[in-house]
Amino acid sequence: MTLQYRHEKQGTARIRAAFPGEHGAYSELALKKAIKRAETVACPHFADTFAAVAKGRVDCGLVPVENSTEGSVNQVYDLLLQHEVIALAEVFVNIHHMLIANPGTTIEDVKRVYSHPQALAQCREYLASRGLEAVQSYNTAGAVKTLKEKKLLDSAAIASEEAAEIYGMKILARKIEDKTDNCTRFLIIAKQEMEGRIREMLGRNGKYKTSLVFGLPHAPGALHTVLAEFAKSGANLTRIDSRPTKEKPWEYVFHVDFEGSTSDPAIGKMLERVQEKTAFLKVVGCYSVASE
Amino acid sequence: MTLQYRHEKQGTARIRAAFPGEHGAYSELALKKAIKRAETVACPHFADTFAAVAKGRVDCGLVPVENSTEGSVNQVYDLLLQHEVIALAEVFVNIHHMLIANPGTTIEDVKRVYSHPQALAQCREYLASRGLEAVQSYNTAGAVKTLKEKKLLDSAAIASEEAAEIYGMKILARKIEDKTDNCTRFLIIAKQEMEGRIREMLGRNGKYKTSLVFGLPHAPGALHTVLAEFAKSGANLTRIDSRPTKEKPWEYVFHVDFEGSTSDPAIGKMLERVQEKTAFLKVVGCYSVASE
Repeated sequence: MTLQYRHEKQGTARIRAAFPGEHGAYSELALKKAIKRAETVACPHFADTFAAVAKGRVDCGLVPVENSTEGSVNQVYDLLLQHEVIALAEVFVNIHHMLIANPGTTIEDVKRVYSHPQALAQCREYLASRGLEAVQSYNTAGAVKTLKEKKLLDSAAIASEEAAEIYGMKILARKIEDKTDNCTRFLIIAKQEMEGRIREMLGRNGKYKTSLVFGLPHAPGALHTVLAEFAKSGANLTRIDSRPTKEKPWEYVFHVDFEGSTSDPAIGKMLERVQEKTAFLKVVGCYSVASE
Repeated sequence: MTLQYRHEKQGTARIRAAFPGEHGAYSELALKKAIKRAETVACPHFADTFAAVAKGRVDCGLVPVENSTEGSVNQVYDLLLQHEVIALAEVFVNIHHMLIANPGTTIEDVKRVYSHPQALAQCREYLASRGLEAVQSYNTAGAVKTLKEKKLLDSAAIASEEAAEIYGMKILARKIEDKTDNCTRFLIIAKQEMEGRIREMLGRNGKYKTSLVFGLPHAPGALHTVLAEFAKSGANLTRIDSRPTKEKPWEYVFHVDFEGSTSDPAIGKMLERVQEKTAFLKVVGCYSVASE
């Protein structure tokens, strides 16, 4: 798999940051919101983005974790557990989807719509009400690129306004998302040793959030025993989600976010107690709470 | 929207049960596993299945809630909250996906693969490694039906062996799921007033599970306060999942399963205390724990 590089400006101190998809992807927009002067590196798939970060081919990366309409991006949650990377920031981006086509295409010509499954899901009602066929693509901007390369005139893509501009394509319809307040939450990920350098680039406020993933021993009340530790320490849970272990059916790993910083000694002690009560525990990251 | 009926045997006492998709769908196989003599009624989409049950056009229905590889079927969780139906049983079915095509198609001809997004996700690695385009369909068996009707010779569908038989189609490859122990959990749903009649048809054992969905008030520790009630009552949580409220970004509703029966007075009292501590509470259902 070859990585594509985009050199915007020369400069040795610039952060090289990977994002999933092609240029114009929502992830690239989120990356530029978080680190303005980042040199953005397009990686086709989520897994490639994690691999680029974990293998040190880039300084950091950014991945979507959660959408306000569709919920968790399941594959990313699974990858956060599999790779030795940590989360250093959260970024929120309002997502407005455009229906994009080759310049020769009119809206009446469109039979198929290409996009990432998450974007297709966020426009489910729009597509269904018009009887349009939904074709899965590895990325939103990647779908625009594919349309252009294959010169498809009976198809459109769902992607950002920026993607339409980059590939010189036409916008057939604007804001086609089913919910107008459609927003996605992203995480900046990096290897542990890059932490200092990346944190320098990031905004910071006094309020922290910590993300964990853990598995449970086979015992009744095991989940409660763990969650009780958060309550005892006054660490407010902002999110809990479960994912299949993929090892044995109907066993889960739990992804939890709570308000608090791992640099707080009380939180540190709590995490020690949580570790004793879990089958495994990974601190995915501790980062400043972002505004939307 | 017209419902399709399948009259297998005549008989006034037979249960009419809706399932999402077309005949040969995994949901229909699950329904026949749970209620052997059911007259199965095909409803294209999840929402149609809920509507058929809620409006009394059928006696009960069945919907998938969770897959061992891909996790929750998000849309169904949202519909369980929106409709006035209750869950009366859980059913587990091992899912083996077939790659199915028109008789004239060889595996080398296949460029596109049609199926439900859940099935496409369960075969993600298979499709990616062969560079096949994934096209979303409303249903697995529905994808087979579409291939046949449109006489597509450059496409295949992912569906059950039964779907291939029903539509007289060819199986190009067997067991193409990424994980061999791929299993889906379904729920039988009905209106409250149908409870007695449907329960008569269902197997029963001494072990019960209860499914709930609730929203939380805006207060720190609100989730823990609720979960602590389960722990105090010794009700073992077997599952917890969160979904966006779709009203306000980053607010969630929680879907919880626990071991225990609502007919147990201690559980009844616990639910009263849970209700006081939640913004809303819906008891989705109480049913016998099924074997896989």
